[in-house]
Amino acid sequence: MNIRLGHGSGGKLSHDLIEKLFIKHFSNELLIEQGDSAILKSKEGLMSFTTDSFVVDPIKFPGGNIGKIAIAGTVNDLAVSGAEPQYLSSAFIIEEGLEYSVLEEIVITMAEEAKKAGVKIVTGDTKVVDKGHCDKLFINTTGIGFLPDNRKHISSGREIKVGDKIIINGSIADHGMCIMSQRNEMNISSEIESDCACLNAMIEAVLEQCQGVKFMRDATRGGLSTVLSELVDDKPYGLLIEEKDVPVKENVRGMCELLGFDPFYVANEGKVVMIVDSADAEKIVEIMKTFTEGAEAAIIGEITAEHPSKGWITTQIGGTRIVDMLSGEQLPRIC
Amino acid sequence: MNIRLGHGSGGKLSHDLIEKLFIKHFSNELLIEQGDSAILKSKEGLMSFTTDSFVVDPIKFPGGNIGKIAIAGTVNDLAVSGAEPQYLSSAFIIEEGLEYSVLEEIVITMAEEAKKAGVKIVTGDTKVVDKGHCDKLFINTTGIGFLPDNRKHISSGREIKVGDKIIINGSIADHGMCIMSQRNEMNISSEIESDCACLNAMIEAVLEQCQGVKFMRDATRGGLSTVLSELVDDKPYGLLIEEKDVPVKENVRGMCELLGFDPFYVANEGKVVMIVDSADAEKIVEIMKTFTEGAEAAIIGEITAEHPSKGWITTQIGGTRIVDMLSGEQLPRIC
Repeated sequence: MNIRLGHGSGGKLSHDLIEKLFIKHFSNELLIEQGDSAILKSKEGLMSFTTDSFVVDPIKFPGGNIGKIAIAGTVNDLAVSGAEPQYLSSAFIIEEGLEYSVLEEIVITMAEEAKKAGVKIVTGDTKVVDKGHCDKLFINTTGIGFLPDNRKHISSGREIKVGDKIIINGSIADHGMCIMSQRNEMNISSEIESDCACLNAMIEAVLEQCQGVKFMRDATRGGLSTVLSELVDDKPYGLLIEEKDVPVKENVRGMCELLGFDPFYVANEGKVVMIVDSADAEKIVEIMKTFTEGAEAAIIGEITAEHPSKGWITTQIGGTRIVDMLSGEQLPRIC
Repeated sequence: MNIRLGHGSGGKLSHDLIEKLFIKHFSNELLIEQGDSAILKSKEGLMSFTTDSFVVDPIKFPGGNIGKIAIAGTVNDLAVSGAEPQYLSSAFIIEEGLEYSVLEEIVITMAEEAKKAGVKIVTGDTKVVDKGHCDKLFINTTGIGFLPDNRKHISSGREIKVGDKIIINGSIADHGMCIMSQRNEMNISSEIESDCACLNAMIEAVLEQCQGVKFMRDATRGGLSTVLSELVDDKPYGLLIEEKDVPVKENVRGMCELLGFDPFYVANEGKVVMIVDSADAEKIVEIMKTFTEGAEAAIIGEITAEHPSKGWITTQIGGTRIVDMLSGEQLPRIC
């Protein structure tokens, strides 16, 4: 067997590779939790630790660049674990011949985003690979955050119960369709912007004001559907999404229809899915709406007792369809 | 200006890139220290945090593979900061088409090395890049370790004083010449093995039994000479190395001579340079010798009042030569 692009999709093949290779051999009780961050017990409290490599192509696109994603992706992984992001490492693999000015622009973006997010880049590494053996620039960021004990349940989702509401902070599929349109040099009248953004300030505001957050996950590779599918996998509950309540921008919807993509499976880089106590749901949406990144926040569904381990979507035309993990690779090098 | 291979050499060009680009823009008091690890104050006490991406070519070689280097490199960076390595992340960038069995072999090596070193791989990431846009496999590992307050001075070297001894745990240039011989398919009668190894157990034994360790650094890219040069750069002291006391294996020396390399500038992956109080030097060498990785440990020189900011080597034929940073790129993708 050879590694295929789908093994990096964030969907089913990735899931299998992680289970059968990494979890199997690296096995320990912390890795088995399989959150995007590891929650580590240390002498005085809980620490969240997460890593991501970024290989997005092209390295610049409307709404961001690989540097912005590298900060936002890791900051968001920490934030959805319930932690306040604090320190980042950044490691660059650079293709020989990359223009210095391009690298500098990306480094400046990273510095700006880190400052906005309130995190410090404290250690780094640089490797240069001979021309033709990598593609312009790959960046790894690894992050550390700290969380109080009363947020420990968030990364596992173990307090989720039937009746909890599902919230998203805005429109889906923006990042994926932005990259797709850039890569294919499509002549689209209204340019699609990536939603790439750090969400930690918004998430922290929600956590400070509401106790009812049961689980969070950023819906990146594999899209909203993959996150929802993982959420109910092997669980005694299911979930139901109202398609009409899930925000999708008009130009993004148009492009998805044109190309035959389902926006539920298309990548985001600035979207968090929250499972919250129904009593807090309206208030959380209101808090989110005070942030640019949450201006279109909405309750999009709920946790159900029916069809345990399965997610369903009530479509706009009144039917239902299933929520699944992305299978195969939809769009390589999305992040 | 374009990025050249030398920017990833670990020598002078790397140094300049770090100063003028990363330190400039990411500036904060923790990054400015410029150790290989950041020492962070946290609620848990002092924490060491370090990152490295590994792009070594070929990915398998006598004495190791890219997975072994990925564990040892990060474990050693933590250990030389005075920390006990505890947690690692591992992030894979895989070229489409890589054989699964090759990946699995490397993952198994990583698991074995992590176990030997007593560290846990607790979080990870996998990206797959389309064929021809990366080279087989790149691995980033980022590590966390903790250190007691009385080791805080080690990463800065601020307690170094004239008369301190310089120790190395064994022969130099093994890793670089191993990779060189593999890459050029040289027909050498005695195969050169990489020295790639985790040094944390040996270092911890030294630190537990001796208070006199002032500074440590693993001599990787740029070789022993680059580490020594950085050590005295802008300092009120210099250093003197006795070339005859620096262990170099016969086959490695022979290959260096054949190809015109100076072993002082060739990469190692299992060598630590220690600056220690002269009263403790002999004892530290004895402790090192009880470990396989330290069997050839030796005192190789000392910190001098003469020629501040400069390092000198007394050569075997009685002359002297200067210790400098590697300039340009000697051997790309050594680690």
